[in-house]
Amino acid sequence: MTRRLPAWRNSVSFLRPDRLIVLALCCLLLVAATALAQTDPLPSWNEGPAKQAILAFVRATTDPSNPSYVRPEARIATFDQDGTTWVEQPMYTPMLYCLARLRELAKDKPELAGAEPFKSLLSGGLERLADASTDDIVKLYAATMTGMTVEELGNQVRRWLDTARDARWGRPYTELVYQPMLEVMQLLRAHGYKTYFVTGGGQDFLRAYAEKVYGVPPEQVVGTLNATKFGYDAAGKAVLTEEPRLLLNNVGPGKPQGIHLMIGRHPQAAFGNSDGDKEMLEYAQAGGGARLMMLVRHDDAEREYAYAAQSKIGTFPDSLLAEAAQKGWVVISMKQDWKRIFSWE
Amino acid sequence: MTRRLPAWRNSVSFLRPDRLIVLALCCLLLVAATALAQTDPLPSWNEGPAKQAILAFVRATTDPSNPSYVRPEARIATFDQDGTTWVEQPMYTPMLYCLARLRELAKDKPELAGAEPFKSLLSGGLERLADASTDDIVKLYAATMTGMTVEELGNQVRRWLDTARDARWGRPYTELVYQPMLEVMQLLRAHGYKTYFVTGGGQDFLRAYAEKVYGVPPEQVVGTLNATKFGYDAAGKAVLTEEPRLLLNNVGPGKPQGIHLMIGRHPQAAFGNSDGDKEMLEYAQAGGGARLMMLVRHDDAEREYAYAAQSKIGTFPDSLLAEAAQKGWVVISMKQDWKRIFSWE
Repeated sequence: MTRRLPAWRNSVSFLRPDRLIVLALCCLLLVAATALAQTDPLPSWNEGPAKQAILAFVRATTDPSNPSYVRPEARIATFDQDGTTWVEQPMYTPMLYCLARLRELAKDKPELAGAEPFKSLLSGGLERLADASTDDIVKLYAATMTGMTVEELGNQVRRWLDTARDARWGRPYTELVYQPMLEVMQLLRAHGYKTYFVTGGGQDFLRAYAEKVYGVPPEQVVGTLNATKFGYDAAGKAVLTEEPRLLLNNVGPGKPQGIHLMIGRHPQAAFGNSDGDKEMLEYAQAGGGARLMMLVRHDDAEREYAYAAQSKIGTFPDSLLAEAAQKGWVVISMKQDWKRIFSWE
Repeated sequence: MTRRLPAWRNSVSFLRPDRLIVLALCCLLLVAATALAQTDPLPSWNEGPAKQAILAFVRATTDPSNPSYVRPEARIATFDQDGTTWVEQPMYTPMLYCLARLRELAKDKPELAGAEPFKSLLSGGLERLADASTDDIVKLYAATMTGMTVEELGNQVRRWLDTARDARWGRPYTELVYQPMLEVMQLLRAHGYKTYFVTGGGQDFLRAYAEKVYGVPPEQVVGTLNATKFGYDAAGKAVLTEEPRLLLNNVGPGKPQGIHLMIGRHPQAAFGNSDGDKEMLEYAQAGGGARLMMLVRHDDAEREYAYAAQSKIGTFPDSLLAEAAQKGWVVISMKQDWKRIFSWE
């Protein structure tokens, strides 16, 4: 005799334990998604036009029924680093690294310490560095960040970041990241955006910590590019060595060039803080449709820094402010728009 | 009197209609996933060591309990294009484009038609092109693929692809894609791999059709790189113009350099077909752990082509075969491993 199950048992028999687990996970995800939707995704931002511009942009470009909808493949957001996602005063951190590394190398290499521009850079410190020509910087970069394998460079940078401390707060540089900007990156990623860095600093410098600190993988770091050389180590293993040959100076007009090289699309959103980001924002806007262009304005001497228009670091001339107003770019006031600046505040 | 629901009704009350829809979708996904798992993901491949190597690699690197597991962020696979994912005989398609474009331009520019290397390229056809020096090719590239905006170049390439036909099959070049390799790309992507092209052809040439033909977005196309120039059009809109300045010749040792520049990691899997891919495969393997290196061998004169070791196009010397055997790279025999070559067969 065949034992027949009642109809309801039959229909429930689909629910084998393994499938039940998947179903349960789906339900949990559902609950989590609902909970998330009710939480403020930008808790470190004060209410105001900047916060509203970000939220409206994300809503418009990810809602399929909105005329400004952007298909997931084209969701690209680019961020400058120094001054936009972390502190750049009194000097860009990648430059601080080069200077620290130069001091270290100079101990064993008097011929390096005695030659210009190194001699005056070593004695003149940050002020001399702020006045350095592009040529000086290229030489400093070549002396400190080339000649080793790409892996060795990454290790050297991470070792320095582990021990170096900022003079004002006494903290590692990687703790001087702006919490509000981290939230913007996370919000964008949660809505299918790929977040890229487009920095004037060296590509392999930022790659050494971008994934850990910002959640940005190495293939999404556009920076100032130098050539590498292919070869083999003593064991016959393929290696790449950093070469002192500049391929792209990723500043100003170099930023759209770097974006085209590594991304090949106009960014849908672009975030900067100085005249070195102007062309990146213009290039984002040139893509047409719903684009978000934002500039961080350093106007909070108490909690961070307030730069004059003529500051050598992170220059923000009045002409940039005028262009922003004319083109509908959104200026973020650190003082007014950010509830807190660092995660540890 | 309070009407009390039976316990089971109470527990089911969570299932509001909107949530039921989501649950139903989850169940459908589950069923679809089960169905997919039972289908052969590589239907155009014959059973054999090549197919098994691909399936074993995907299983090992995506199963969290396997010692060779690779976290999703590091799942990168790189593919050469010409000869690896589409036909490269009797001449690389990007070169055919340059020659066709040169013929078109020469009609209106006798000064171009009369100067070398263009004069002999126009009269000598494919044979002259196969003997062209790197310097000749750079000049041909500069004459035909620079001077216009990056958007105009993409449009010119797409217009040509729409009408140009291959001499042997009379089909568009984009139909000469190898169906078995498309299946490998799809299988890898279904398992969280990012599929990149690493081609000797121009980056912006391949970008013009990579997304449509291969499902590879522009940011995952590494190619031979030229500089661009930033400027503004008549309406004041930011534009990039293709410049005749070579930044990276993405062939041989240039491939690991291009990979580092655009990806910054060793590929977990790399696919090529000639000595121009040797260094890319070596660099993938140098990353250590479970890596898959494969070379397509053209040994099927009937269905596609069979190249001699000394072929100028897609050279596959015996030394490469020996290196593959020594290092555990897998050689794909088109004749034995591929059930069909093109989707329309």
